[in-house]
Amino acid sequence: MSRGDAQPPTLGIDVGGTKTQGIVLDGDARVIADRRGRTETGPSGVIATALAVARDCLRLAGVGTAELGSVGVGIPGRVDHRTGVVCTAVNLGIGRLELGSVLSAELGVPVYVDNDVKATALGAADYLRAGEADLTYLNLGTGVASATLIGGRLVRGTDNLAGEIGHVPVDPTAGRCACGQQGCIEVLAGGGQIANRLAAGDSGLTLSTLLAAAEAGDQAATDEALRIATGIATAVQLVVLAHGSTRVALGGGVVQTAPGLVDLTRRLLDERARQSEFLASLDLAGRISLVPAEHPLAAIGAALVGRAGVADLRWERPVRMEPASRERQS
Amino acid sequence: MSRGDAQPPTLGIDVGGTKTQGIVLDGDARVIADRRGRTETGPSGVIATALAVARDCLRLAGVGTAELGSVGVGIPGRVDHRTGVVCTAVNLGIGRLELGSVLSAELGVPVYVDNDVKATALGAADYLRAGEADLTYLNLGTGVASATLIGGRLVRGTDNLAGEIGHVPVDPTAGRCACGQQGCIEVLAGGGQIANRLAAGDSGLTLSTLLAAAEAGDQAATDEALRIATGIATAVQLVVLAHGSTRVALGGGVVQTAPGLVDLTRRLLDERARQSEFLASLDLAGRISLVPAEHPLAAIGAALVGRAGVADLRWERPVRMEPASRERQS
Repeated sequence: MSRGDAQPPTLGIDVGGTKTQGIVLDGDARVIADRRGRTETGPSGVIATALAVARDCLRLAGVGTAELGSVGVGIPGRVDHRTGVVCTAVNLGIGRLELGSVLSAELGVPVYVDNDVKATALGAADYLRAGEADLTYLNLGTGVASATLIGGRLVRGTDNLAGEIGHVPVDPTAGRCACGQQGCIEVLAGGGQIANRLAAGDSGLTLSTLLAAAEAGDQAATDEALRIATGIATAVQLVVLAHGSTRVALGGGVVQTAPGLVDLTRRLLDERARQSEFLASLDLAGRISLVPAEHPLAAIGAALVGRAGVADLRWERPVRMEPASRERQS
Repeated sequence: MSRGDAQPPTLGIDVGGTKTQGIVLDGDARVIADRRGRTETGPSGVIATALAVARDCLRLAGVGTAELGSVGVGIPGRVDHRTGVVCTAVNLGIGRLELGSVLSAELGVPVYVDNDVKATALGAADYLRAGEADLTYLNLGTGVASATLIGGRLVRGTDNLAGEIGHVPVDPTAGRCACGQQGCIEVLAGGGQIANRLAAGDSGLTLSTLLAAAEAGDQAATDEALRIATGIATAVQLVVLAHGSTRVALGGGVVQTAPGLVDLTRRLLDERARQSEFLASLDLAGRISLVPAEHPLAAIGAALVGRAGVADLRWERPVRMEPASRERQS
């Protein structure tokens, strides 16, 4: 394979609750390897998984650690991107882990770590070729969070806090959130809360069967689908009104399991627009798009985190998927 | 008076619903004149008022239009800062007005126009000496809107839209908003809606007497004060979670008429923090401060709009009030 001389290759690793995905980006911003493995939890499990995926990727790309410029990691939880320390990544069983320095010592390469939603926003900007447009990535996973790029540059806020919009209360009647508040966006649209409600409903419904059941006339399924879409619609409206985002990319397990929720969200936004000339002027429904589950957005974003290092995180240059990166995958 | 040679003086004009205020900023970022007049409404009224205040300020400062580098104007409504066109400034009786080009032709100086909340955010950053901190100015006037500086630079979003957070729905039971939606933040905390409720209540209460009546045990007053403070608290929480703002400056007629609402908002935020470890970790109450009504934040911000011209709007350098600027005022 040919690689540009401008920049050394970068490895990106996305550590998720169930799987960990790695990619190698060469100096021409081409994805030349793409591998995944099942995540082992706990601090040592996360480290072992990340190292195994990293070594697998490098072997596949034919790149040695000595050639590697940097490594970027995206991981859930509160991440201090300056120190590489991860805190309270509950689903991974991590209280506090100096992930950046541990991986860096193992690989002998600088390792930069960031929150996974922030990293994925860079991947989404790349996938959508968003250029200098103001873009928000809205992650609808177990929890709800967003990350916004303004003029291509990531908004961090104090202590990397920007984007914790899942914990804005939007409906006092909606029930208690895991965070302790009442009626957060996450109560309506977070995967954890949805799963709890479906389990408690004792109807046998799951997120995968919800929309079909709603279409078949099941009232409980219809109510639940509307509840989730209301949460997503309000989150979209919130990020557009707060940041003025031109585009809102939706991703995460909830919408990837039930993509029909995105259409339902569009219908709700259009309904709100019929009541409000102001909202109609914004065309919120037209700003949203679902990012594909099969594209390694999060790992590409992680590689861009690695490439940026301690500089401002921004998306500048299109990444291209090399077909061979996956065909070579065992 | 001595003026620095680095930059020519700038005139800033804040056009409000009832008064228009002008200031002159010299090359050393000192306020050397500060005047106000009553706003006449309608396109020609607004122009006549702005020109009268401008000429008054220049006379007071001893600055001719030929010496002036630029003029900045802050005005309510949707403003295209690139063209100086103001749309739908309802309280001023303006449907569409090419304010920038009209004033520029009259004064013979480049005139830059921006939304008043965005201009005031620059003035608030200056007043609080916010430096590179991420700061949100939350305006609680007839409507509710915000403007955020990230690293000192103003967030605009598509079509200068960023900050229209008054129209995020946060309580489906709170009643209809002027925008057509149900339960917007502006329904809870916007001055127009508050005045309507107080008038409809037939209790003789006004915003000025509300908190005293609540303290004296009036239940309707207590409920209304809590409703307003809930709206303010949710707006504060929204901007901190969306932008990660380190500080939130509160201003506008509602909190300037009833400053006790800021203390009540702090108490509500502390109460929410007691229910939620996550919120407690953010110390939202500690991030807010009330900006003083008597300091010409909005006009100083307008001057900074003028100084920036078409460049990115940012606060860079402290402005100092020259005592003489007001003492000389007639």
